[in-house]
Amino acid sequence: MMTCDWDATSGWHHPKIEPIGELKIHPGAKVLHYASELFEGMKAYRGVDNKIRMFRPEMNMARMKRTAIRAALPDFDSEEMINVLTEMLRLDQEWVPNSDVCSLYMRPTLIGTDPTLGVGCATEAKMFVITGPVGAYYSTGFQPVSLLADSRFIRAFPGGVGAYKMGCNYAPTIWVGKEAASKNCQQVLWLYGENEDLTEVGTMNIFLFWKNEEGDMELITPPLHRGLILPGVTRDSLLELGREWGEYKVTERTLNMQEVKKALAEKRLYEMFGSGTACVVSPVGKILYHNKVTDEYEELHIPTMSSKHGVMQKFYNTINDIQYGRLIKDGWMRDI
Amino acid sequence: MMTCDWDATSGWHHPKIEPIGELKIHPGAKVLHYASELFEGMKAYRGVDNKIRMFRPEMNMARMKRTAIRAALPDFDSEEMINVLTEMLRLDQEWVPNSDVCSLYMRPTLIGTDPTLGVGCATEAKMFVITGPVGAYYSTGFQPVSLLADSRFIRAFPGGVGAYKMGCNYAPTIWVGKEAASKNCQQVLWLYGENEDLTEVGTMNIFLFWKNEEGDMELITPPLHRGLILPGVTRDSLLELGREWGEYKVTERTLNMQEVKKALAEKRLYEMFGSGTACVVSPVGKILYHNKVTDEYEELHIPTMSSKHGVMQKFYNTINDIQYGRLIKDGWMRDI
Repeated sequence: MMTCDWDATSGWHHPKIEPIGELKIHPGAKVLHYASELFEGMKAYRGVDNKIRMFRPEMNMARMKRTAIRAALPDFDSEEMINVLTEMLRLDQEWVPNSDVCSLYMRPTLIGTDPTLGVGCATEAKMFVITGPVGAYYSTGFQPVSLLADSRFIRAFPGGVGAYKMGCNYAPTIWVGKEAASKNCQQVLWLYGENEDLTEVGTMNIFLFWKNEEGDMELITPPLHRGLILPGVTRDSLLELGREWGEYKVTERTLNMQEVKKALAEKRLYEMFGSGTACVVSPVGKILYHNKVTDEYEELHIPTMSSKHGVMQKFYNTINDIQYGRLIKDGWMRDI
Repeated sequence: MMTCDWDATSGWHHPKIEPIGELKIHPGAKVLHYASELFEGMKAYRGVDNKIRMFRPEMNMARMKRTAIRAALPDFDSEEMINVLTEMLRLDQEWVPNSDVCSLYMRPTLIGTDPTLGVGCATEAKMFVITGPVGAYYSTGFQPVSLLADSRFIRAFPGGVGAYKMGCNYAPTIWVGKEAASKNCQQVLWLYGENEDLTEVGTMNIFLFWKNEEGDMELITPPLHRGLILPGVTRDSLLELGREWGEYKVTERTLNMQEVKKALAEKRLYEMFGSGTACVVSPVGKILYHNKVTDEYEELHIPTMSSKHGVMQKFYNTINDIQYGRLIKDGWMRDI
């Protein structure tokens, strides 16, 4: 693991890479009381040429910097941090799996450590990075997930911090995840507002491929501007690829449950999938929708798995090809 | 400090009381990534009869239990926990100040400790309690605070966890507190929704004493039902005392900025104050209000300090008299 301490007087100290071990944290540390904490999730891949690469690490580090400022935790130099990650990967390269379906997950984390119970800016902080090899997400092919969509549970709201990767966005979702599991749903489809706008799914961004009311084939994902959506690196990558290919319209816009239901009824909705670092894409097979008017649950079947358009599949294949060095996309993969 | 571990297999272990020291926490522990954490704030007082007492500890423990369930952290027995706090106070009784303006602050905390990066229920957890003597909050008399009221910053929202004392409610407020400080305000007056309803002030509940539009003298605090408000122990105590005294109407209802401005203009607003464990009551002297229509700031002067009604002052005196044993209120003080 890497650890690096910071304090308000002397700034960042020298980073250390050492065997993983327990952290010593004062029981009054801000991270334990006021959730002064944030993290990133990223991966290193061993390419078919045996070279180890990170996927768009500058995107993660830019988001981590923005999050640090919003969380009142110390700022840092992104490129310096990528150097540290590179150094870790060089040391730990045997842990990057020799497989084009596995990878090494990396978890940079920043916590406020000063033991003062006032709710205020951290005056001491610790950055650390832990890593772990992860196996194939889809060892037996894509597994469509069932989602609980219930607008009584809200993940993020305008004026809040839903656009930042702060720890505080996750704790409130765990109990809702249990509710979903009790209804045989694997994830929560997070809705927002009067119109029940789709925002995210579980800890992923959400995409929908349909024929819109004007008859155009269109890929849609909700927009970032209201601060309700985490700006995912995979989300950004899918949008860029989709626009590059030019095979269909690519749109960032607000999308609500009534539009989804109408498109399903008119058989215009072909695919719905989450996007994220862990899985790249994750197909949605069912939505268990809580109708707030009738207070009843409706099962919506999403035909993602039987789509003949192969939009999700092409994203999956392309991103994988890029990550494992079978396909070059300028500026996306960073050699260590 | 007290520590007590829990795991999903064997439940709670025996609590230990030992000298304060750093906790050993795995870098993958849920508390460091997903804010799996909650706390309570409570005090022990040395009465004028030299007996040490806690103020309504069953209220704090009931809230802590509710919060543990919402945070997907383990449940516990409230009375057992009060016994543990009592045992700590017996051991540490020399730390409870010999003064009727000081007290011993107690911070029970519950964190998720299992080192698994999945966003899910904690399978291991740690309860700990740290304490520290605190001095007089008002060593030179009441100090009125200035509040920043800006509806672009939201503390809590329906469908969220604003009614629970989870760490995640605090991290997002720190940056907003810096914004307030940069405008010479000590606290944030948290507004919510289209009508800019008053919800909380800093980390306190908010009270207002006015003559309402019907001409009745009335004490108002926002209601709990929308889940936007932390159910404060001091809030509950002021409501109970105010109703017992019967000197004015006591109302829990939604209150918005336009009503505050109108009442100020009509000179019907006499007092505004926060309520909380740290200060009992905290007078508001000024609101710096961001007008969302004009995008300009308006200074509202709140005449709390020159009120002839003495509502806040009577609450302060009465709660202090109860806490230091000069006045008996059945069931509120718990002997150790």
